[in-house]
Amino acid sequence: MAETSDPSTTPDLTVQSLGPAEVPSPLKLSTLFEDGIANYTPDNARVLVDPCDGDGRGREAGSFELAGPRQQIFFKGDEVAAGIVTCGGLCPGMNNVIRAMVLHLWHGYGVRRIIGFRFGFQGLTPEASEPYVVMSPEMVRDIQALGGTILGSSRGAQRAEVMVDTLHRLGLNMLFCIGGDGTMRGAEAIFSEIRRRQARIAVVGVPKTIDNDLLHNERTFGFDTAVSIAAEAIKAAHVEATGAPRGVGLVRLMGRHSGFVTASATLASREVNLALVPELPFDIGGEHGVLAYVRERLRSRGHCVVVVAEGAGQEHVRTDGGTDASGNVHLGDIGLVLKHAINAELAGEGLSLKYIDPSYIIRAAPANSADAIFCGRLAEDAVHAAMAGKTGLMVGTWLNYLTHVPLAAVVTGRKTISLDSSFWRNVVDATGQPRRLALDPAAS
Amino acid sequence: MAETSDPSTTPDLTVQSLGPAEVPSPLKLSTLFEDGIANYTPDNARVLVDPCDGDGRGREAGSFELAGPRQQIFFKGDEVAAGIVTCGGLCPGMNNVIRAMVLHLWHGYGVRRIIGFRFGFQGLTPEASEPYVVMSPEMVRDIQALGGTILGSSRGAQRAEVMVDTLHRLGLNMLFCIGGDGTMRGAEAIFSEIRRRQARIAVVGVPKTIDNDLLHNERTFGFDTAVSIAAEAIKAAHVEATGAPRGVGLVRLMGRHSGFVTASATLASREVNLALVPELPFDIGGEHGVLAYVRERLRSRGHCVVVVAEGAGQEHVRTDGGTDASGNVHLGDIGLVLKHAINAELAGEGLSLKYIDPSYIIRAAPANSADAIFCGRLAEDAVHAAMAGKTGLMVGTWLNYLTHVPLAAVVTGRKTISLDSSFWRNVVDATGQPRRLALDPAAS
Amino acid sequence: MAETSDPSTTPDLTVQSLGPAEVPSPLKLSTLFEDGIANYTPDNARVLVDPCDGDGRGREAGSFELAGPRQQIFFKGDEVAAGIVTCGGLCPGMNNVIRAMVLHLWHGYGVRRIIGFRFGFQGLTPEASEPYVVMSPEMVRDIQALGGTILGSSRGAQRAEVMVDTLHRLGLNMLFCIGGDGTMRGAEAIFSEIRRRQARIAVVGVPKTIDNDLLHNERTFGFDTAVSIAAEAIKAAHVEATGAPRGVGLVRLMGRHSGFVTASATLASREVNLALVPELPFDIGGEHGVLAYVRERLRSRGHCVVVVAEGAGQEHVRTDGGTDASGNVHLGDIGLVLKHAINAELAGEGLSLKYIDPSYIIRAAPANSADAIFCGRLAEDAVHAAMAGKTGLMVGTWLNYLTHVPLAAVVTGRKTISLDSSFWRNVVDATGQPRRLALDPAAS
Amino acid sequence: MAETSDPSTTPDLTVQSLGPAEVPSPLKLSTLFEDGIANYTPDNARVLVDPCDGDGRGREAGSFELAGPRQQIFFKGDEVAAGIVTCGGLCPGMNNVIRAMVLHLWHGYGVRRIIGFRFGFQGLTPEASEPYVVMSPEMVRDIQALGGTILGSSRGAQRAEVMVDTLHRLGLNMLFCIGGDGTMRGAEAIFSEIRRRQARIAVVGVPKTIDNDLLHNERTFGFDTAVSIAAEAIKAAHVEATGAPRGVGLVRLMGRHSGFVTASATLASREVNLALVPELPFDIGGEHGVLAYVRERLRSRGHCVVVVAEGAGQEHVRTDGGTDASGNVHLGDIGLVLKHAINAELAGEGLSLKYIDPSYIIRAAPANSADAIFCGRLAEDAVHAAMAGKTGLMVGTWLNYLTHVPLAAVVTGRKTISLDSSFWRNVVDATGQPRRLALDPAAS
Repeated sequence: MAETSDPSTTPDLTVQSLGPAEVPSPLKLSTLFEDGIANYTPDNARVLVDPCDGDGRGREAGSFELAGPRQQIFFKGDEVAAGIVTCGGLCPGMNNVIRAMVLHLWHGYGVRRIIGFRFGFQGLTPEASEPYVVMSPEMVRDIQALGGTILGSSRGAQRAEVMVDTLHRLGLNMLFCIGGDGTMRGAEAIFSEIRRRQARIAVVGVPKTIDNDLLHNERTFGFDTAVSIAAEAIKAAHVEATGAPRGVGLVRLMGRHSGFVTASATLASREVNLALVPELPFDIGGEHGVLAYVRERLRSRGHCVVVVAEGAGQEHVRTDGGTDASGNVHLGDIGLVLKHAINAELAGEGLSLKYIDPSYIIRAAPANSADAIFCGRLAEDAVHAAMAGKTGLMVGTWLNYLTHVPLAAVVTGRKTISLDSSFWRNVVDATGQPRRLALDPAAS
Repeated sequence: MAETSDPSTTPDLTVQSLGPAEVPSPLKLSTLFEDGIANYTPDNARVLVDPCDGDGRGREAGSFELAGPRQQIFFKGDEVAAGIVTCGGLCPGMNNVIRAMVLHLWHGYGVRRIIGFRFGFQGLTPEASEPYVVMSPEMVRDIQALGGTILGSSRGAQRAEVMVDTLHRLGLNMLFCIGGDGTMRGAEAIFSEIRRRQARIAVVGVPKTIDNDLLHNERTFGFDTAVSIAAEAIKAAHVEATGAPRGVGLVRLMGRHSGFVTASATLASREVNLALVPELPFDIGGEHGVLAYVRERLRSRGHCVVVVAEGAGQEHVRTDGGTDASGNVHLGDIGLVLKHAINAELAGEGLSLKYIDPSYIIRAAPANSADAIFCGRLAEDAVHAAMAGKTGLMVGTWLNYLTHVPLAAVVTGRKTISLDSSFWRNVVDATGQPRRLALDPAAS
Repeated sequence: MAETSDPSTTPDLTVQSLGPAEVPSPLKLSTLFEDGIANYTPDNARVLVDPCDGDGRGREAGSFELAGPRQQIFFKGDEVAAGIVTCGGLCPGMNNVIRAMVLHLWHGYGVRRIIGFRFGFQGLTPEASEPYVVMSPEMVRDIQALGGTILGSSRGAQRAEVMVDTLHRLGLNMLFCIGGDGTMRGAEAIFSEIRRRQARIAVVGVPKTIDNDLLHNERTFGFDTAVSIAAEAIKAAHVEATGAPRGVGLVRLMGRHSGFVTASATLASREVNLALVPELPFDIGGEHGVLAYVRERLRSRGHCVVVVAEGAGQEHVRTDGGTDASGNVHLGDIGLVLKHAINAELAGEGLSLKYIDPSYIIRAAPANSADAIFCGRLAEDAVHAAMAGKTGLMVGTWLNYLTHVPLAAVVTGRKTISLDSSFWRNVVDATGQPRRLALDPAAS
Repeated sequence: MAETSDPSTTPDLTVQSLGPAEVPSPLKLSTLFEDGIANYTPDNARVLVDPCDGDGRGREAGSFELAGPRQQIFFKGDEVAAGIVTCGGLCPGMNNVIRAMVLHLWHGYGVRRIIGFRFGFQGLTPEASEPYVVMSPEMVRDIQALGGTILGSSRGAQRAEVMVDTLHRLGLNMLFCIGGDGTMRGAEAIFSEIRRRQARIAVVGVPKTIDNDLLHNERTFGFDTAVSIAAEAIKAAHVEATGAPRGVGLVRLMGRHSGFVTASATLASREVNLALVPELPFDIGGEHGVLAYVRERLRSRGHCVVVVAEGAGQEHVRTDGGTDASGNVHLGDIGLVLKHAINAELAGEGLSLKYIDPSYIIRAAPANSADAIFCGRLAEDAVHAAMAGKTGLMVGTWLNYLTHVPLAAVVTGRKTISLDSSFWRNVVDATGQPRRLALDPAAS
């Protein structure tokens, strides 16, 4: 998509499999068109990475394998033992994915052995704080109404050898990893270890990152819900900013490396005057900096709403250089840095700054209806992929099609906003902020 | 998209224009990549109709022109006089579109003469019940929070000659028509009349139909919001059905010719046991019919939730054969027909049926955040198209790109659900309903 | 309360009990003030029916017994076997009441035998469609988030003898009846039959009627939630009415004998132009009638929002004279009568009428936070009353205090809006409707 | 009300007035009963402070004057010039109050000169940052849908002499002050200064404090809305706490001196395990302290949800001893103190703490329907009071009646939760927390 900064070279998009698919699918679909019965997805069906012609850019090579049910699959339902694990921060829709996986394994393919690991990858280690749970359709019946994940989650990598030992010990031949960037790295390590052992275990990832920063993937579940609640928080900031003399509303949102939540919530609310994202270099002080802009807006309009992604402007923040359990570098709190800087600079002229951090309210929300539908599609295609013996892949989306993306391709980088894109132009148009907020943007 | 029944032949997708674009755009965008400034859209940029390879279907020919700001445009901002009209039933997001159009014409292109016609196409006739209103950024500032349309709307065609006379009388050279199928036919007629007169007036449509049934277009604004509220109504029906002995919850939703709202709300809620759409032939009585299914479900599970699109099963409904002001054939009320049929058939065995019709609550809602963002994109690209002298087109979406679709191609048919698609398969999986609900499906 | 039409004479407000309360309460509360421990409610504590002085009305005699935990109670926890039944139409908060009852019986008084009857009073008969369920804290843990009632409900009286036989057969000594007017009549009949048999079974009612029409009771649970959702439906009607030329939005709400939902939703929304309640005589045609008013408003303001309670204007409706299972007289549908009358009268002048009936969406909603708190208080005080051996009573509210009201007093009439009250004056002020809508109000 | 700690002696509740009320009211109400027309409120009508008998407490003396329209009033509508000012932090419903005041002055009493001061009491000084605005029905038509206050607000007292000078300069004879404790003190000072000057200006307060801590007043507007949104934040904390191994959800809520928001949101959500309010002494460390409780709960149940009012446990917080512009003592941030203490104490054992502060999201919300209705009643009775020449009073509520409370009585203290009350007992029952959280409760 033109809105993101694509990698310059297309990676290998070939999907791995455990072996030849020689089991007829039990799904009773069709291979004919117009017979009123849905078709299997041919195994050679692919969608182009770049569907555009004549747009002035070189045509990007390559295509993604399409997801969907295969006519010939690898596993028989009654030999499958599947595990599900949810990792990383909470995100709307995790329960919808769990539920749809269990139902589709059970009712679609006749799988009867499904377990859920508790609290992320640590649940696959002997040190698991809680034992795994046995899953059934009854158990997941109403969980889509709940926020969070019934399995629990945690951050943090674990040694692949140890986790694969657990899979062996439990006799699993299928592992579904629901998570973001770090989780996909973990899944890739598990996949590599399995391959090293020449084991017959499929590893399939489902992209969950509220930041929507996974590469080769248009959309992650929960993002739509997150944007809608973030827009509500921005509305509150706007009310607070306009309700006080020289009012400033400052909202901190999710976005460690990519500003998609911040940018989209800005476009949804239309009440933001300054959007700061990790992709955008900015000064705090100085002629072009944030403080100068806020001062000018207070002078001319009497109020100002600023939205900042948690990962923006990290050069302005002191950190300890450490990393969290997920391997994420500790981020300093740019929200508090801006809060203190604006207060320090402008309090003398009169100022009423209100700071809002809705992160956990957003993360804990249940999925909205668009995400609920999307979660169902992702989960079902993840099940189809694993049953077909596909492995080492993430189920992604591209041009509204569901795809199989090799984990090795996913973990090569992160999707970020291109400042060149019309998407970012829309944000700048909506806020009225200057294109340039740093004396020397290149230096940042 | 595979989920819809595409027309068998691709129509001419060439976009018309008023003449050579020789005015430099005032937008100050770029033509270079990676310079941190968004680019103009090259006039030859197109997106493929079918981006898939090897999926077992013949590759569909053709491509859509991409929407977006052009480097050379047709109109100077200070010579433009633009009109906006909203037609048909209410739909979430109409005010967002109006607002973004006015702001983008005003701030982006310097247009200062913008008027809004009241109450649909009748506002373009001498018999208009209310005079047009003069529009400005101040006037539209907060309207995105409101449901409905500040301009008012109405159903009904008007004679193209009369409407073009009005455009001439008011000196307009740009008309934006926000509406559905009937509106696009009206816009096409206005466009044809303008061309016959060789007048210099651009006509640009923005797709608004809560049914999401416009051809060559993935998504209409308001649809996402509609599905989310419809899912809430289904939830109520489920609570009522399970709260009474042998409870039946029956929900009637929008969808004259296409069941997208019904099908999507079914997938979002996961609590529907029978989804009936216009595309699906079904009997009411008989061995395979609706009553037999409802009876069996009450017997085995004690409750049943049925969702029916307003246009489903019209062969079971007596109508007067007339049409409404939009030219839509009067639909008999299949919701009430089913209500009476279920009550008549099953009341003797004990039954508690609750009937819910949330249509106007859905139509009157303000846009959710996803639709709010989408409305902004549609409106801005509609403005870019008209400023570039493009005419006789609708701004559509395809593979997440915004496109220019000739009105002539839009009005050749309607988008419907393919019963062959994986989308419909997902619905059937979610409800557990039989694939076949009629003795002789072909006869319907 | 001055807002309601009180009965002219105060009934006997003496509460019955099963016998002397000689068991010390296990609650470990206090009888001292200012010791930081909540006090037992003295058994002689009462709240005045009329706390006003000098308001120009004769002081109403009498007082209600205050609800709350007693120091000496009648039952030992381990001898109690309690039954819970929910009756009548759904209402927000039923599950909150069930949950709080179970938890308070279990954790507060050590009761371990609690059953829930399915689907209303029919669950207390041998013909019960489903067997009773055994209840525990685990079972009710999360049910407050759900609309409806996990026990199911139904309308309809059953013979008291049969129901008391069931209580005996199951060895119950406590029955909680959650319901409205009809349910309280049923509970009164059960109570009388128990007294006739000199049995040792407490019968306690909890007032559930979305109409808020129970006598000697300020507020019923679910009413606050109902008003808030009704106000949303009115908002939709307003958007529809203003979005069309000569638009009329017509909303039908709950209210068989009392217009509290209609009047309160009118006050909450401030967008209603005509509110019609059962207490208000009105003509449809004629000089003072509804049609004349709507016509005039369309002429002068271009739109009109009408809200009508289901029980309003029954003299204008043909009914079959029958009654439903609850003994309620069949109401003709005044909403449809008005819809047809307005269409018939005004269609010739142009009209766009949208009809909204949100009843089941309202009834099926979960309780909002105010109702959730209120349900907890009601349920706990119902448990305290039954444990103390109080019987034949309903837990009510008066002047914000929770009270014990004899069922015999509750069933003597219904609470209605006094057209003399400042409450109704506020409605008339808010709508701008004429005080008089009938040629001869007295005749209605 | 028994739930609060009442002052030991009843203050003088006599309401002041500007002089004899000799102008006939223009409202055309009645003085008869049962004539279908609402009555004027007799000037001697009062409601008892304590309506209870035999509850074991000494009967509290005294009664409040009832609010409502008087038959004889003091001002003629066409001689009135009224000012409105909103002060303090934002609170849901401020715009509803403003709107109803303007409409009732205008339509009820024919007042045509109404102004709104900007940004609180500072708007009544020569240093006002913005000039006052002239108000009309048109201007306030749709403002009830907006959060905040269209007039703006600010904290901070101003000199009464200066503000009364402003009233004189503008020729006002009526001032409505919408605010909390500090605002009522300001209004009392203005009232005293006016009396000193023997001026003919009515001063009427409307209670707005999200903390609901005003004395002699049951309920403040916005409180109900605040509780409902706070309960949503608690739900998020619960999801986060249960979604992580040894998860702690910590929510900070409003409540400087009184814990009503915290306690009520706890009762509404039923998912809190520890509620800390300013009225409750607690240790952080030590045998009975918060950390010991949280540790034990994590051990036994695996998660813990803690809700703390901003003013709780101030002895554990370092503050600078200063005051804010409202004269409120700077509160240290007990939320952050607890966050750091829990992390420091328990991180070694494994812990995932999520901190949520929804304060500004709550304050900026629009009023829910219950508050919307309540705001209308308050505003109208404030107008009736001022028109009748009543002054130096606040419109309050008592036993669901609206009352006139002398400002002198309001400012003598604050309403707090009595730890003796059944209200607090309900909170303790709902959380399962120990009654005692300090080694020596008396010392705190």
